[in-house]
Amino acid sequence: MVNVGILGATGMVGQRFINLLDNHPDFEVTALAASSRSAGKRYEDATTWYIDEPMPESVKDIIVTDTKVEDVSNDVEIVFSSLPTEFAAKTERAFAKEYVVASNASALRMEKNVPLVIPEVNPNFLEMIEAQQKETNSDGFVVTNPNCSTIALTLTLKPIIDNFNIKNVHVSTMQAISGAGYNGVPSMAIVDNLVPYIGGEEEKMESETLYLLGSLNNGEVKKADFNLSASCHRVAVVDGHTEAVFIELEDEFDIEDVKNKMSSYKSIPQELNLFSAPKNPIIVREEEDRPQPRMDRNAENGMSVSVGRLRKDNAFDNSFKYVLVGHNTIRGAAGASILNAELINDKIL
Amino acid sequence: MVNVGILGATGMVGQRFINLLDNHPDFEVTALAASSRSAGKRYEDATTWYIDEPMPESVKDIIVTDTKVEDVSNDVEIVFSSLPTEFAAKTERAFAKEYVVASNASALRMEKNVPLVIPEVNPNFLEMIEAQQKETNSDGFVVTNPNCSTIALTLTLKPIIDNFNIKNVHVSTMQAISGAGYNGVPSMAIVDNLVPYIGGEEEKMESETLYLLGSLNNGEVKKADFNLSASCHRVAVVDGHTEAVFIELEDEFDIEDVKNKMSSYKSIPQELNLFSAPKNPIIVREEEDRPQPRMDRNAENGMSVSVGRLRKDNAFDNSFKYVLVGHNTIRGAAGASILNAELINDKIL
Amino acid sequence: MVNVGILGATGMVGQRFINLLDNHPDFEVTALAASSRSAGKRYEDATTWYIDEPMPESVKDIIVTDTKVEDVSNDVEIVFSSLPTEFAAKTERAFAKEYVVASNASALRMEKNVPLVIPEVNPNFLEMIEAQQKETNSDGFVVTNPNCSTIALTLTLKPIIDNFNIKNVHVSTMQAISGAGYNGVPSMAIVDNLVPYIGGEEEKMESETLYLLGSLNNGEVKKADFNLSASCHRVAVVDGHTEAVFIELEDEFDIEDVKNKMSSYKSIPQELNLFSAPKNPIIVREEEDRPQPRMDRNAENGMSVSVGRLRKDNAFDNSFKYVLVGHNTIRGAAGASILNAELINDKIL
Amino acid sequence: MVNVGILGATGMVGQRFINLLDNHPDFEVTALAASSRSAGKRYEDATTWYIDEPMPESVKDIIVTDTKVEDVSNDVEIVFSSLPTEFAAKTERAFAKEYVVASNASALRMEKNVPLVIPEVNPNFLEMIEAQQKETNSDGFVVTNPNCSTIALTLTLKPIIDNFNIKNVHVSTMQAISGAGYNGVPSMAIVDNLVPYIGGEEEKMESETLYLLGSLNNGEVKKADFNLSASCHRVAVVDGHTEAVFIELEDEFDIEDVKNKMSSYKSIPQELNLFSAPKNPIIVREEEDRPQPRMDRNAENGMSVSVGRLRKDNAFDNSFKYVLVGHNTIRGAAGASILNAELINDKIL
Repeated sequence: MVNVGILGATGMVGQRFINLLDNHPDFEVTALAASSRSAGKRYEDATTWYIDEPMPESVKDIIVTDTKVEDVSNDVEIVFSSLPTEFAAKTERAFAKEYVVASNASALRMEKNVPLVIPEVNPNFLEMIEAQQKETNSDGFVVTNPNCSTIALTLTLKPIIDNFNIKNVHVSTMQAISGAGYNGVPSMAIVDNLVPYIGGEEEKMESETLYLLGSLNNGEVKKADFNLSASCHRVAVVDGHTEAVFIELEDEFDIEDVKNKMSSYKSIPQELNLFSAPKNPIIVREEEDRPQPRMDRNAENGMSVSVGRLRKDNAFDNSFKYVLVGHNTIRGAAGASILNAELINDKIL
Repeated sequence: MVNVGILGATGMVGQRFINLLDNHPDFEVTALAASSRSAGKRYEDATTWYIDEPMPESVKDIIVTDTKVEDVSNDVEIVFSSLPTEFAAKTERAFAKEYVVASNASALRMEKNVPLVIPEVNPNFLEMIEAQQKETNSDGFVVTNPNCSTIALTLTLKPIIDNFNIKNVHVSTMQAISGAGYNGVPSMAIVDNLVPYIGGEEEKMESETLYLLGSLNNGEVKKADFNLSASCHRVAVVDGHTEAVFIELEDEFDIEDVKNKMSSYKSIPQELNLFSAPKNPIIVREEEDRPQPRMDRNAENGMSVSVGRLRKDNAFDNSFKYVLVGHNTIRGAAGASILNAELINDKIL
Repeated sequence: MVNVGILGATGMVGQRFINLLDNHPDFEVTALAASSRSAGKRYEDATTWYIDEPMPESVKDIIVTDTKVEDVSNDVEIVFSSLPTEFAAKTERAFAKEYVVASNASALRMEKNVPLVIPEVNPNFLEMIEAQQKETNSDGFVVTNPNCSTIALTLTLKPIIDNFNIKNVHVSTMQAISGAGYNGVPSMAIVDNLVPYIGGEEEKMESETLYLLGSLNNGEVKKADFNLSASCHRVAVVDGHTEAVFIELEDEFDIEDVKNKMSSYKSIPQELNLFSAPKNPIIVREEEDRPQPRMDRNAENGMSVSVGRLRKDNAFDNSFKYVLVGHNTIRGAAGASILNAELINDKIL
Repeated sequence: MVNVGILGATGMVGQRFINLLDNHPDFEVTALAASSRSAGKRYEDATTWYIDEPMPESVKDIIVTDTKVEDVSNDVEIVFSSLPTEFAAKTERAFAKEYVVASNASALRMEKNVPLVIPEVNPNFLEMIEAQQKETNSDGFVVTNPNCSTIALTLTLKPIIDNFNIKNVHVSTMQAISGAGYNGVPSMAIVDNLVPYIGGEEEKMESETLYLLGSLNNGEVKKADFNLSASCHRVAVVDGHTEAVFIELEDEFDIEDVKNKMSSYKSIPQELNLFSAPKNPIIVREEEDRPQPRMDRNAENGMSVSVGRLRKDNAFDNSFKYVLVGHNTIRGAAGASILNAELINDKIL
């Protein structure tokens, strides 16, 4: 068993880490760090638990520490981070001196030599680690996963870009409130309402997606060569981001071919049989009104992205459209970091 | 005063007709028709009133009739129709023998010689009326308004197409539940959920928009010459459709110029000072997180479309994006039919 | 016209004051005070407007001042207060040196010589004003209105206590999110959820109701002599508090008699024909599933309380039950203060 | 393994039966019956699956039959019923000729010799079975569980009535939409709204609760001897009924004593260690704002009732109040029938 710690352990994503790591075959949660306000308390006493499955017994008595390298025990090997952006860069760099840091924060995602990885999409980006360790003279390193809405989109684009020439992508999102943290969205903003704006989200989707689908040569990422525009919106859904995707290819295509490439897509995590890897990263549904977030977000324990309404777009040449649903705090956050750590544990540690 | 009747008077849009026609300076509601189940009852007894302003006193005692031409009094001149599609074509044709029928139903929208009109966009389509009356040998005629999501989109596209060459449009909607009627969307489908499908909606948006923005020559409509693709979704909002719009022009443009053309747009209804015409058909908001349906749907009594987040789209050449909100049962339904009738009353009757 | 000012003008209740005072025949808003952060700005620039009717033109250019007596112009006569509790007592006392303060804050409600008034229930409590002015050596004075959930309940209890001997009351509330202010309730707490707790609310309902229905003798209030227990809960409704009320009387009664006493109830504001007074303070509905907050909160411009499901309670002797809906930010807050001011303006100023 | 069948297998509660019986150690689902419209189809093809965990593989290929005794295979021993009320009485009686029928329908609940049972509350009512079999000359029999809101309330009242003399109970519910079936509550009735009426619910709560807490003598149930009044309301929550409970005892009490009696309550299912029995039927929470339906409905796999805000009620002598949350389709429906069947399987079969 590998001992793991969690930074930001009392927040929404921190709680999801604990929820997903309960009964993990390889990782055991032994360290929990949060703000100084929580430090010194039992985790159960420090935390208002918001997940609808109960808090695992195994963490209740862990004493929360401050988020400092010296406060975390040496027998930890991997540290999961869901730190706030403004605080993450410096802290994660500090922890990376000694630990493997699997981060869901956005601060270091686009930094040189910091791998931004979806294991099914660009596992080769882990090559950056060696350069990172050399550059920072560290025993540990940081690996990051993308933004929640980016992960779901990119996963569905991967079998497409592998088999077709993508020209243009437009994506419009309907994102769950849990993505903003427990206090992020006031109820007055979301009951009988929606908010057509999420700060920084469109920029992240547009840059991270092309980066993840790009190629790595000599430590440099060459972004994928298509156009991608996003419009992001918050709706009254607790968990599960929905995205409407419009795709134009360079060439003619057969819609059944697209469907088959998506539904049969498997990659390294499936081959390695990683614990959190879904059997089918992409589930293609045939009903006319699916996927829907409440019904489909938990597919394969929240690690699969569900695609539906895959249809030709007759308004444009060589085009098609679909709708996807992915669980934003599992596949789009904590589960993504854990899958990264599982890949690292299998291939590198 | 012109006496008017309402077909489908007990339904959601029928109630909105009554709500909007209360205290109208030119129209007086004197006839209400509904299903045979309601016929013979006082309107107040036949109706479960769902609008959050009270039922006008003036209609409470009107005896509801069956939806038959012979049951409606001869002193009525204009009949508003919110009949179900499958039932509308034949009934509206029958009423058009004698009456002006201002219809919100989709059945006859694309029929030859039946004007599909937004008064601010294509008032000249009313020219079709003469041919329609000749063809059907009628004293009356049918005029229709578009689908709720189409009206809001088309209104915002009008000042753009007037001043720029539109090449491509992608639109993704987040539509209110009231658009499906009181029993249309089960609560189990919409609490902590959304439904990424609305039957027939995408087809209507794609065809009606190009038709409305097209040109009329010798009774034939030549559709506007750009590409338009829609993806339609239902969200947990009572009233007010939100649409994310991506536009690519043929040529370079200045975003301030687009903004000014939208916010200053006025047309025939404003010139004629029609009672239901908003002073500003398009309101452009500057806040980063507006428009929002609950806050903006009632702008200018629900007859204005609010636009926000108007921004350059750097992912594509000559492109920009925006978000719009329009009230689906006012500007998108009952108010649209009433504005059509006001235009007809001013120009033709 | 009486010039009036608003303290807490940018908040939810402050906005409702402005909304309700637009086109008021006797009061003209000329002064707006808020936090020092807003001071010096135009009201339109200082405020994120959340009400679904537009901000009145007349207030947009008013320069917001700090909440200090010396910053508010002398030509103001009445000051409406929606100040936060912890800040209200001292500030309202200061303003009361010169102005009539009509307060919605809870700080001074139960203070000796400060009238806590619902004009239809206990207008005679205004007698306290003279003692208050003498005690504080002031030209002005403070008058308060009760808590939102208390007002609706008390209004419906008034015709009952006037005609029957109330023994026991149990009330369970389902309260709207707007009552907690824009940022009061996180969406994560209310989507697919409810919160069975509102800090201080049960205590206010239990004490204020008995106080309001009590009698005033020589400046002392003798509370009404029945037992009242409340349980308060927050649900996913924007505006409109719903309350389930169980009443046990001392004696036998006829349920139709109760209904008639409620539906025919009129009081001083109706006799004086005050501008904001509803014609019927209590509307009794006969449908089996009403009142409902979205349908009924706006009855008589939000100033009537709607009662339904009035039925015998066979589980207890001499008992009945009903459900009520009242608009929490109109009848339960800003409208209550305005009606108090109208009564004062008519009877005292 | 005992083979079991499900009547009403495609509905909401039918799906919950299948969900809960997946991987059951003693019961194996081998027969699924539904309306004639579904008969002959594979279960997966006949069903729109609404539960957020995936449909078990084991039932997908089962061919749905009509709901007739002769269509269900003989090797089935127990039949779970979630039939519509109007259809349940006759059908369940027919199945009871041969099978054990564990029913969630209300039709036969109060019939003589048909046990209405909560295993933790009145397992002795199973004594009625012998008389039922004799009376109906059947090999099988029917056993029923109470209404969803009744079960949660009664479970929490059981340790109270065992230790104190209950005099009066008032209960006000806030019930989840899933209780009405998928199409039961229109979204227009529940978004920014609530419905203060559920047909027949108050009557069921008032009669079933006293019956369950009563005593059985010579086949006759003597109802519990206290007064109980209910007011029932539907709110925008997917799963999980919340109830505000006011209790008056005959005598003085200590609130800590009540708390301990509730939290330590165990009964027959716990002693027998039945598979679906929660370790703690009642969980008493200490937070000031719990229980909440989304957070607490899944406690112990949805089989525990969570109680919070247990507090003295100073408005009445010898009184206290609390709030409870129970999962309406698990503890309140399918899980209740399954626990009944487990008890029967352990004690009788």
